[in-house]
Amino acid sequence: MYSDAFFIPRALLLFAVFLAAATGVHAEDGYDLWLRYQPLEAEAREKYRPQLRQLVIPGSEQSPTLKAIEGELVRGVGGLLKRAPGVSAGVNGDGFVLVATPKASRDVRAQNFPVHKLGEEGYLVRSTTIRGHRGTVVAANSELGLLYGSFHLLRLLQTRSALEGVSIESRPRIGLRLLNHWDNLDRSVERGYAGQSIWDWWNLPDVLDPRYTDYARANAAIGINGTVLNNVNASADSLTPRYLAKAAALADVFRPYGIRVYLSARFSAPVEIGGLDTADPKDPDVQRWWAHKADEIYRLIPDFGGFLVKANSEGQPGPQDYGRSHAEGANLLARALNPHGGVVMWRAFVYQQDNPEDRAKQAYSDFVPLDGQFDDNVIVQVKNGPIDFQPREPFHPMFGAMPKTPLMMEFQITKEYLGFASHLAYLGPMYEEVLRADTFAEGPGSTVAKVIDGSLHGHQLTGIAGVANIGSDRDWTGSTFNQANWYVFGRMAWNPQTGAEEVARDWLKITFSNNPVVLTTGQDMLRDSRQAVVDYMTPLGLAHLMATGHHYGPGPWVSDLARPEWNPAYYHRADKNGIGFDRTSEGSNAVAQYADPVAKRFASRSDVGDDLLLWFHHLPWDYPMTSGRDLWEELVHRYDTGVAEVREMRAQWQSLEPLIDAERFDKTARLLRVQEREAQWWRDASIAYFQSVSQRPLPEGVAPPAHSLEHYQAVKYPWAPGH
Amino acid sequence: MYSDAFFIPRALLLFAVFLAAATGVHAEDGYDLWLRYQPLEAEAREKYRPQLRQLVIPGSEQSPTLKAIEGELVRGVGGLLKRAPGVSAGVNGDGFVLVATPKASRDVRAQNFPVHKLGEEGYLVRSTTIRGHRGTVVAANSELGLLYGSFHLLRLLQTRSALEGVSIESRPRIGLRLLNHWDNLDRSVERGYAGQSIWDWWNLPDVLDPRYTDYARANAAIGINGTVLNNVNASADSLTPRYLAKAAALADVFRPYGIRVYLSARFSAPVEIGGLDTADPKDPDVQRWWAHKADEIYRLIPDFGGFLVKANSEGQPGPQDYGRSHAEGANLLARALNPHGGVVMWRAFVYQQDNPEDRAKQAYSDFVPLDGQFDDNVIVQVKNGPIDFQPREPFHPMFGAMPKTPLMMEFQITKEYLGFASHLAYLGPMYEEVLRADTFAEGPGSTVAKVIDGSLHGHQLTGIAGVANIGSDRDWTGSTFNQANWYVFGRMAWNPQTGAEEVARDWLKITFSNNPVVLTTGQDMLRDSRQAVVDYMTPLGLAHLMATGHHYGPGPWVSDLARPEWNPAYYHRADKNGIGFDRTSEGSNAVAQYADPVAKRFASRSDVGDDLLLWFHHLPWDYPMTSGRDLWEELVHRYDTGVAEVREMRAQWQSLEPLIDAERFDKTARLLRVQEREAQWWRDASIAYFQSVSQRPLPEGVAPPAHSLEHYQAVKYPWAPGH
Repeated sequence: MYSDAFFIPRALLLFAVFLAAATGVHAEDGYDLWLRYQPLEAEAREKYRPQLRQLVIPGSEQSPTLKAIEGELVRGVGGLLKRAPGVSAGVNGDGFVLVATPKASRDVRAQNFPVHKLGEEGYLVRSTTIRGHRGTVVAANSELGLLYGSFHLLRLLQTRSALEGVSIESRPRIGLRLLNHWDNLDRSVERGYAGQSIWDWWNLPDVLDPRYTDYARANAAIGINGTVLNNVNASADSLTPRYLAKAAALADVFRPYGIRVYLSARFSAPVEIGGLDTADPKDPDVQRWWAHKADEIYRLIPDFGGFLVKANSEGQPGPQDYGRSHAEGANLLARALNPHGGVVMWRAFVYQQDNPEDRAKQAYSDFVPLDGQFDDNVIVQVKNGPIDFQPREPFHPMFGAMPKTPLMMEFQITKEYLGFASHLAYLGPMYEEVLRADTFAEGPGSTVAKVIDGSLHGHQLTGIAGVANIGSDRDWTGSTFNQANWYVFGRMAWNPQTGAEEVARDWLKITFSNNPVVLTTGQDMLRDSRQAVVDYMTPLGLAHLMATGHHYGPGPWVSDLARPEWNPAYYHRADKNGIGFDRTSEGSNAVAQYADPVAKRFASRSDVGDDLLLWFHHLPWDYPMTSGRDLWEELVHRYDTGVAEVREMRAQWQSLEPLIDAERFDKTARLLRVQEREAQWWRDASIAYFQSVSQRPLPEGVAPPAHSLEHYQAVKYPWAPGH
Repeated sequence: MYSDAFFIPRALLLFAVFLAAATGVHAEDGYDLWLRYQPLEAEAREKYRPQLRQLVIPGSEQSPTLKAIEGELVRGVGGLLKRAPGVSAGVNGDGFVLVATPKASRDVRAQNFPVHKLGEEGYLVRSTTIRGHRGTVVAANSELGLLYGSFHLLRLLQTRSALEGVSIESRPRIGLRLLNHWDNLDRSVERGYAGQSIWDWWNLPDVLDPRYTDYARANAAIGINGTVLNNVNASADSLTPRYLAKAAALADVFRPYGIRVYLSARFSAPVEIGGLDTADPKDPDVQRWWAHKADEIYRLIPDFGGFLVKANSEGQPGPQDYGRSHAEGANLLARALNPHGGVVMWRAFVYQQDNPEDRAKQAYSDFVPLDGQFDDNVIVQVKNGPIDFQPREPFHPMFGAMPKTPLMMEFQITKEYLGFASHLAYLGPMYEEVLRADTFAEGPGSTVAKVIDGSLHGHQLTGIAGVANIGSDRDWTGSTFNQANWYVFGRMAWNPQTGAEEVARDWLKITFSNNPVVLTTGQDMLRDSRQAVVDYMTPLGLAHLMATGHHYGPGPWVSDLARPEWNPAYYHRADKNGIGFDRTSEGSNAVAQYADPVAKRFASRSDVGDDLLLWFHHLPWDYPMTSGRDLWEELVHRYDTGVAEVREMRAQWQSLEPLIDAERFDKTARLLRVQEREAQWWRDASIAYFQSVSQRPLPEGVAPPAHSLEHYQAVKYPWAPGH
């Protein structure tokens, strides 16, 4: 609708306003996510219409999931083609879409599709002929598979893919595909930058915001099948009857869409809400309390997924408070859930105040010795890297190192360390980089993806979690481009081999338009955006240089916090002579936590590569880089590159103005202005600081920071969100 | 669209879903407030169309306000009539709407309208003939007046009022018509129950949410002309350059709509952000600091309205910290603002920890002696009653008692003490009760309305403020019916003589439909709803029986808080012998703060009336009431009545199901279920408690509370919003 209008005279604008009011067309406010069913271009509509005349979904009167499928296809096809398909009891003409399990439909059975290959959640979408009529079948072994297949069918239209001759088979490689909401009961969101929690705990279970349904639709559309509702820094109150009733109301809304509800469990809940005087896993009263609590939960939520637990980490209570191991703690909860089929996701994000060991090593040191001690329904949830969701980290050394224990991935979708909601950073390349990393645990090809999809060590229980970037903002994620990170997480959770660029292209088509200029430019922006953040924040393998607490803006000079590993100075170790964290055998020897070939590469200055150089090595400022510059010059160069990349991205977006609707164009343009300003701030502040340490002159032609180091050090942001 | 559909078969529903997707019609989610321009019934459209063919707004290319008028009329008329008027440079046919000042239009000048009577903000709307063409003129002395008149014209359509022969003149009786937002810089809202603050401070001034414009439109539509952006419990940070730039960005959005920005000022800001070691009003450095701060603000916001100040109240800093009076404190700020034309709104909501005087008397005692000491640009902001926004209070005794000082009204629109966002309570009758109360300050007819419109004591500076119930919820106020309270506040601010019932009828027509059943039933609900809350919470003049802190739910038993006047027991004073607060000359003698005839009436058990009986009198449980019941029986009866009223309201709403769209019907129905449950809770808990005190049997036929007193006392709500 907007894509060909280069200049819109005022009269036309007024007319558009009138049209909007008269027909109720709402602005492109981003609410629809990838369920945006705005009409396709006329030629695409014409092409698809004959193929999508008739919808046949046997049993849709009875089943909530089939009803949801019917509603979605009527709405989606109707919107995209400006003509809804008729709903029919049986196939009786060309252009049918038959959505059914073989069990429910004789026509599907007659096709002899290879449904045995699809598992419980998979589906196929096939062009075929039924009794002389040509059309499309979506088949699966379960209604949920049909739902996923139906969303795939809609995606084909949204991406203008051919329906004719289509033959798609798809099944998820990972079992638990979850969002983790770090949402508190007061509706604040830890590390949330898109408004407050979408869970209106106060008004639940009485009031059911229509948004809950749209949340389920959006997640089902990308294959997400579970959600942890509350913060890992959990309040025990979420396990009280009052709050369980609220969680149950959400579970009821989500159930038709195959989204299971999970809760973060506070380990000390038996004390805080149970009236016991211990939470010791070996205490029979504690064991009984958790068993009864599980029974109570499953009475309310029969398909409850299980618990996520952050224990003995950053002040949270845990089994070590009673001299028990993480395995003993996890198994306590696992045994309570086991009779009901629930799982425990036990987080490996631990590091301890009084432990002088390199923080990057501590999780491995704590957990690897426990391999084999966890119950069958426990899965250990490991962050992608060994520190904490930095713009770039090496993959976590636990991946591949615990063959007897299922490990699940924890990605962060919300950009705690990558510019909050305002910086454009597409995380697809970051996820891809981690998933494709080779652990060499069982020889070459032992990728992280194979660890978490269970294939490397033969685990059935598999999982992947993304810390959600979702809030009450109208566009859900604080910006249109942040939606891409939720989207790509879902797509890669379904299949960790999925390429970030392919997903980017789909997302751009669905979100903006099929215009080739939009697609080419948008793909460029998405592809380079995360590296830009790395460059202007923490280039060359540096990490954790953010300001204290809220993690907003630069703070490389901070070195006075109580715990050493809270200080940026702990991570960069810069002084007059050099910079970087020596994790070779000369230093913390963190490299030894990786399998041999990886350890060797990381330990080698020449093989590790620029991206992780200072993560593993402490080097003199005049260390010669492959670029021909020395390390100091290269560092400055990277900061400049980061700023230049943002400036380029801003110009690219500006060039799309005639091709993007006004509301989303304008907000994105304003955010890119913020990002450019803040990239410059990061660059200037970081160079000012590192120069004060290195005492080296700026390379010729490099602009000095706009202000003094003291200026940057004095900047304070007392009301930063998410903290 | 919904009003004639009694049964909607499933196929139709699906079709509606398709239509919604295909045309982008959004659900009735309440976002549009009273700017809901959904098409009128066909006959109304036919009637109006010939009268609204042509829009003539001279100068609309240049002026942002005229441009806003044009946009609003095109959108409004276009939506309501499903046909937009043409925009024309001059009147050249029947059915014109000419919007212009006499200065801008020779055609308007030629009409010789009595514009001198309209003042700066008033307007007239007239049917007339211009050069042989019949049409309507909106005239005013200012563009803002034209905007108000244009919104009135749209309201005529929305309420299906005749345009033919229309002759309306209107001007506001009160100068400052403001919302007070108790919004914090972290986006939390004190006493907010509709999500978080709509001010996205973090992303301002870079990102301008379209909601800011819609906020301005909605307020201008009801004549509100100012907004205090931040909480009266203010952070000094809102006066720093960084936050002033954010406020300025909002002011820029609001300016075309005549909404001025004000800020709550923290009295100790010179210390906290100014680097001074005192905030003493007599200190020249302090005076200079405020003068410079005012200069700085006006450079950014040339039409900045002024400061609202909560000082020496509930822990806030103030002039008394330095031994200075409220007048000296207010004048300090007033002198800084005076060169720029700004005002100081100094709140009279004060009561002190160490003051044993009846809390209801303290504001009067503090302020009345200062009458005459305030600078000309100071106005004292007084809550409607002497305690704190209770479901019912007598009017504040300061009204009428400070003839030399302009007093402005502070109403609470958010329902801190009336069931948060979930209970349906239309506050129009409460506002009306206060505004029409006769202070007798200058003899009979000295109503509160005449105090605050300045006519009683000849003040030019006049004002009224409402503590906003606005948040980030899609429907702005947490429920559709809460919108009515924002609406009626605006209408009564414009003209304090406006009747609550008339406004209710307008609001129902605009918000739901013109269906007579909806109107009759809706008016019944609105009219009785506030009295229902009084009856099930604090009947017969009782007050402040709410639970501690968050004020959610009953807590009449609370008596152990540090400050006596924080305890419900302080207010009800119930014991075995009786109940009520003796404020006669035998007691605190608060009655003496009222003018003689009022004081006499309040002091008389027989004349004061049931509504305020226990506010002013401590009476034995067997005191004979006019109903024939004794006081104990009457109290129980009132609680029962309150519950019955809610039950009735719920049934009334249920009867409207076929006539209301599904989304708003359902949410309201669910909230009424909450309200019924909670009314019962209030009734049961209160009766359980008062019976434990009175030791009297329940009257025959009265149901005992469902649970023991201990049960109710044990109920805790740790995550209540707004606290």
